[in-house]
Amino acid sequence: MKLKSFFPIMDWLPQYTGDQFKGDISAGLTVGVMLIPQGMAYAMLAGLPPIYGLYASTLPLILYAILGTSRQLAVGPVAMVSLLTASSVGMLAETGSGSYIALAISLALIVGLIQFFLGTFRLGFLVNFLSHPVISGFTSAAALIIGISQLKHLLGVNIGRSHHIHEILLEAIEKIASVNIPTLLIGLGGIALIIAVRKFNRSIPGSLLAVVFGILVSWGFGLTESGVKIVGEVPKGLPSFGIPTFSMDMLGTLLPIALTISLVSFMESIAVAKAVQAKHKNYKVIPNQELIALGAANIGGAFFQSYPVTGGFSRTAVNDQAGARTGMASIISAVLIILTLLFLTPLFYYLPNAILAAVIMVAVFGLIDYKEPIHLWHTDRGDFWMLIVTFVATLSLGIEQGIGIGVILSLAMMIFRSTRPHMVELGEVPGAKVYRNLDRFTDLKKRDDILIVRFDAQLYFANINFFQERMSELIRAKGEHLKAIIINAESIGYMDSSAMHALEEFVKKYKARNIKIFFTGVIGPVRDALNRAHLLDEIGKDRLFMTVQQAVDVIDGEGAPNALNGRLENYTLQTNK
Amino acid sequence: MKLKSFFPIMDWLPQYTGDQFKGDISAGLTVGVMLIPQGMAYAMLAGLPPIYGLYASTLPLILYAILGTSRQLAVGPVAMVSLLTASSVGMLAETGSGSYIALAISLALIVGLIQFFLGTFRLGFLVNFLSHPVISGFTSAAALIIGISQLKHLLGVNIGRSHHIHEILLEAIEKIASVNIPTLLIGLGGIALIIAVRKFNRSIPGSLLAVVFGILVSWGFGLTESGVKIVGEVPKGLPSFGIPTFSMDMLGTLLPIALTISLVSFMESIAVAKAVQAKHKNYKVIPNQELIALGAANIGGAFFQSYPVTGGFSRTAVNDQAGARTGMASIISAVLIILTLLFLTPLFYYLPNAILAAVIMVAVFGLIDYKEPIHLWHTDRGDFWMLIVTFVATLSLGIEQGIGIGVILSLAMMIFRSTRPHMVELGEVPGAKVYRNLDRFTDLKKRDDILIVRFDAQLYFANINFFQERMSELIRAKGEHLKAIIINAESIGYMDSSAMHALEEFVKKYKARNIKIFFTGVIGPVRDALNRAHLLDEIGKDRLFMTVQQAVDVIDGEGAPNALNGRLENYTLQTNK
Repeated sequence: MKLKSFFPIMDWLPQYTGDQFKGDISAGLTVGVMLIPQGMAYAMLAGLPPIYGLYASTLPLILYAILGTSRQLAVGPVAMVSLLTASSVGMLAETGSGSYIALAISLALIVGLIQFFLGTFRLGFLVNFLSHPVISGFTSAAALIIGISQLKHLLGVNIGRSHHIHEILLEAIEKIASVNIPTLLIGLGGIALIIAVRKFNRSIPGSLLAVVFGILVSWGFGLTESGVKIVGEVPKGLPSFGIPTFSMDMLGTLLPIALTISLVSFMESIAVAKAVQAKHKNYKVIPNQELIALGAANIGGAFFQSYPVTGGFSRTAVNDQAGARTGMASIISAVLIILTLLFLTPLFYYLPNAILAAVIMVAVFGLIDYKEPIHLWHTDRGDFWMLIVTFVATLSLGIEQGIGIGVILSLAMMIFRSTRPHMVELGEVPGAKVYRNLDRFTDLKKRDDILIVRFDAQLYFANINFFQERMSELIRAKGEHLKAIIINAESIGYMDSSAMHALEEFVKKYKARNIKIFFTGVIGPVRDALNRAHLLDEIGKDRLFMTVQQAVDVIDGEGAPNALNGRLENYTLQTNK
Repeated sequence: MKLKSFFPIMDWLPQYTGDQFKGDISAGLTVGVMLIPQGMAYAMLAGLPPIYGLYASTLPLILYAILGTSRQLAVGPVAMVSLLTASSVGMLAETGSGSYIALAISLALIVGLIQFFLGTFRLGFLVNFLSHPVISGFTSAAALIIGISQLKHLLGVNIGRSHHIHEILLEAIEKIASVNIPTLLIGLGGIALIIAVRKFNRSIPGSLLAVVFGILVSWGFGLTESGVKIVGEVPKGLPSFGIPTFSMDMLGTLLPIALTISLVSFMESIAVAKAVQAKHKNYKVIPNQELIALGAANIGGAFFQSYPVTGGFSRTAVNDQAGARTGMASIISAVLIILTLLFLTPLFYYLPNAILAAVIMVAVFGLIDYKEPIHLWHTDRGDFWMLIVTFVATLSLGIEQGIGIGVILSLAMMIFRSTRPHMVELGEVPGAKVYRNLDRFTDLKKRDDILIVRFDAQLYFANINFFQERMSELIRAKGEHLKAIIINAESIGYMDSSAMHALEEFVKKYKARNIKIFFTGVIGPVRDALNRAHLLDEIGKDRLFMTVQQAVDVIDGEGAPNALNGRLENYTLQTNK
């Protein structure tokens, strides 16, 4: 029991069946075959020699299989995290240099430690602060940046590193004359091949075919002579053990992005893990355990030359479709990569960089989501602008700034919105003993002597002033005849101490003016709070009712004699003080 | 009309009556008489020569009378703002030096510009983010710091400037032997006098009596010989015109505290203005116009040697009690101070600093609120800790840090709380067709085939995961018999686009599992949002009901034939798309 919760592999390994193995071997091999080109491509995107993408596809997969709660999640290098790695490590060292590689590996350790820490202390909920529009805007912008960053490999020209898309595009146009035609043709061929194969049959590994095509063409026609850049010497053998090191200075620089990577990669991972789990239902994805598993995968990987990894969208989908039943599929993928490292690396000598660029471009352009902004424009203008701001900020200011601004802005908007919640005057639906918003319906019965108000939010320090001011307006509008105020508190989910103070003042003020205050539908936690603050006594226990109608009846004297029976007193007043 | 809203003085000046003048003259003189000692004392607290407290009690009062919407608010130097001035300007210049004075005046200009800006752009609502516990903790701590900072004047010993109370107290104890006994006696005499007079009759200006007592004693007994520190030469005449100047460097240092002063002083001002207005009801306090008026008072004052001012608690209360009817009272107070500056300053030569310290100490110790933490301990433990943290942070880290931490913490707690809102399963109150929380009542009717859930908060990106997970738990707990889920949405005041996406997924998922999903009591704005997102169609318009009972009846087939008539379809489905 205890052991199982630390090592979810114990959930399935002891009952492992041949049937499960049949699914796992097919899925594991399929994903492994996908991983070879993708791993190399994403390593290139991260600014690392391609071999590091294969290194990152070994131990982390096995560690995740042992510790992860998802049985189909395919861990390894992914585009977004590779880009984030390049953008942070690129600030500290020259791309591809020895210290660059060392830093990328240290980054994996830091990311792993952060994720492990977040998981252990059950802080996985932090990822909830990434709202849908922010994720959408951020992902589209990052995909665009990633795609455009591969232009130089596709065109075979030298373009300076930049985070500004327009600069890259301008430079590409300036250098249009020096484009290496064979490189471009190979790249476009790769793209066409991947897309065509995908259209034809999703279970054929198009990117591997593109790799084979690229190698054959560049080797067969001797295209390196014509200036086609190739991967070149790929060292044979497994990643060696090494202790990642970094200075405190570097830690300071790496920490913000490590935190971004931790959360973004967790988010990508948990989203796809949950989506796949929803289909299977024979196990449960536990977010904080997922953080621990991803953390362990990154920490362990960092000691064997791996850069940051996470669970990826596309490979997980393939893994699931190809029949993965347990984490054994991941272990099989890892074994395939290990065999590749041991025996097959010489084959990649002639692999053109343009093919890896093609693999990346096809993968990320699918992430650009143009439908969501259109959808939001029609349904939620605020969230539309949130998406646009995040998108523009990510493109113009940078990856982690973009997501940071998105998160802060969406929280700020949420707070701001809560300061001016929906608050309406109610009237009676004729003959129905039900009360609805007077502004929405024209046929409601409105009375001069009773003000019925509904406040649709928690009542707390940031909106208590709004409540008081709106209340004063409504009361002023009623004029002289007003003898009672009914506050329909159904939708007040919480009240803090600032609200209690203001409410006490409010009740006293209108008591003094001989206007009766009633509360209806007060929910349990709020009743408790009112009681603890002794406000229930100030209001008067005979002023609380289950429904608006009961309060109206009492005001009218109709329910007077045994009103307190009719209103289910126990239910209306009960509190767990 | 237009003119009146810019110059609220036009509201009352054209109809000014002799009757009003009678009240105003009495109140204006009383407050003016209070202002003389208080102004000098608070200037000393701000680290300025006492005369600057009088300068700050001239033009700003008149400007406020013209532009302010409160008719009783008494503007001028106050303790809290004086302390904040000392703590910020003290970082940039030596207390009492020429550049110190120049900076304090520049600070008034910056504060004024910020307030004017906030008012013009209707940002006065920002002050709502100061919750009651934060204000209470902050005020108590600041009062303690202010009071203790005056110890050196009361004891007549030299104590180094420090924000750390324990350091000041330790130094005071170390130097107990060198206490100047005549100074201490005068100071304690002053405190006793002010308290005694206040107990006896609140309308007698006790602090002025203390001033007279101090001057007479120190002059009469020649106590300067015995080491009693006195105010000394006070320059005669009105403040002169001068353009405040400051460098960009200084602006950077002053800006954070200027923002704090702007908001804290506005908060103090608006709170007392509203409290007094509530008694009068013949005018309306408009928060953003108040910001403009205070801003103008500070800007105008800065050109005539005034340091930051605001509307003060105690003098406003006195002003009101003494019969102030309009802003004319403030103008009269200002005229009294002007006359004092022209003719009476020589009288203050022998005024002991200990008396000014006594005035300050009596004023601020009343602000220390020990009842609120006790009250919160019993009623709201979260807010109790908020108060304590703000109190401790203000004492240990500093004035503006304390309030900053308080605000950020209370917003963070609010956000955090909203990620795990109250969400409960409901059961039927026997025979009452009403549904309540199953965890609170033991006699409710619970069914295996229907899950009824109430979610007591807005449904948005930060809690949508919580909603889904809790929902899955509740559904799992129901087991095989579950055929319908009723979501009582009465208390969901808002849904964002992330919630829509998740809800769509949720509805589709359970549709596929043949479990019917019903929504009841959906409020207008949420209906609109559901409709815009086309989710109303996905849910099905026949799945929305006014009450839980109606949905249950339909599930049971009881309401089936004409269920749609019984549920007031127009009211249930109406949206303002």
